[in-house]
Amino acid sequence: MKSRSLTGVAAIAVVAGAQIFTPSQAADGDFFTIVDGALDRPTGYREWIYVGTPVTPNDMNNGKAAFPEFHNVYIDPASWEHWKETGNFQDGTILIKELVSVGSKMASSGAGYFEGDYLGLEATIKSAEHFPDEPGNWAYYSFSTPDHSSLLESASAFPKEACNACHQASAADDFVFTQYYPVLRAGKGTGEEAIGGVKSELK
Amino acid sequence: MKSRSLTGVAAIAVVAGAQIFTPSQAADGDFFTIVDGALDRPTGYREWIYVGTPVTPNDMNNGKAAFPEFHNVYIDPASWEHWKETGNFQDGTILIKELVSVGSKMASSGAGYFEGDYLGLEATIKSAEHFPDEPGNWAYYSFSTPDHSSLLESASAFPKEACNACHQASAADDFVFTQYYPVLRAGKGTGEEAIGGVKSELK
Repeated sequence: MKSRSLTGVAAIAVVAGAQIFTPSQAADGDFFTIVDGALDRPTGYREWIYVGTPVTPNDMNNGKAAFPEFHNVYIDPASWEHWKETGNFQDGTILIKELVSVGSKMASSGAGYFEGDYLGLEATIKSAEHFPDEPGNWAYYSFSTPDHSSLLESASAFPKEACNACHQASAADDFVFTQYYPVLRAGKGTGEEAIGGVKSELK
Repeated sequence: MKSRSLTGVAAIAVVAGAQIFTPSQAADGDFFTIVDGALDRPTGYREWIYVGTPVTPNDMNNGKAAFPEFHNVYIDPASWEHWKETGNFQDGTILIKELVSVGSKMASSGAGYFEGDYLGLEATIKSAEHFPDEPGNWAYYSFSTPDHSSLLESASAFPKEACNACHQASAADDFVFTQYYPVLRAGKGTGEEAIGGVKSELK
């Protein structure tokens, strides 16, 4: 990891408290801990960098979406710094997908889909050390429970074939669906422009 | 402002560079500058705290949504710290609404709405100093242009009646539509739990 990323990590720890970056987490990756193959449920991701929100509502998927329903996606801040500088996902990148229900379909702003309550939590990690045999060194986890009432405290990675078929076939950039994440697309290797509001041109 | 918030602001400046927090911005608020009644286009908000994404697609609103189409909403980090501690929006709060097109309605994850390109930028600020006569001291701005190809460099606040009618009638908490922003709902006065992943219970 570059020294600049480490500076970013340390600074963010000051902002948000020790939950985000602790010495025990740093042993594995800056933002996750894997013990005996199981990933501890990450914490602090609502203070990471948000990258985009697909919504695959149950009512557009015969009542049972594969990923119900909104998916708020985040990247850890150190890997965001690396992405801004290089346009690549560094080893140790963790992306979080927080699942949120459709709470409403009508508001004073119009008809649409509006976020309700939390439903689940998923993660993907790129690590040559932990996943030398996975495509692109990415592995995938879910902390969701069938009744969507709670989250697991730790999770094992899905079998290779469960997630990578779609990610390998359809994801635009290094197994990540950047085509649906405007923050990552706009920020890929663009340095300070990536932070938003710097440029007047949108297209 | 509390010293803890100031610490957070300073730390984030280290992470993201001078664009987010400069002495000239600090004169007005930590994250915005108003000169002669006009708000400079904010920068750095993609590294602030994300709070939620409504989507009011054009195709669900007779081809012309009031707010096309995804709205990625952020709060400045200092006001987020205050929100976690107190459950209130502090004076000086700025919320950003970044508008994003619907890029696709079908993906390998299912049918739905998937974010495309940036379309516009809006902001709301709570300030008794700047807006003593506005309801709740909130004022509303848009940097969007009619053709959605660029952003204005500065913007004047909308007239009082343009935005506050809906916000006053329908917003759940101090003129903010927190009912659609799960990060704010879950984080309201909950301290460290607000950062995500701390609790196992979702309901």
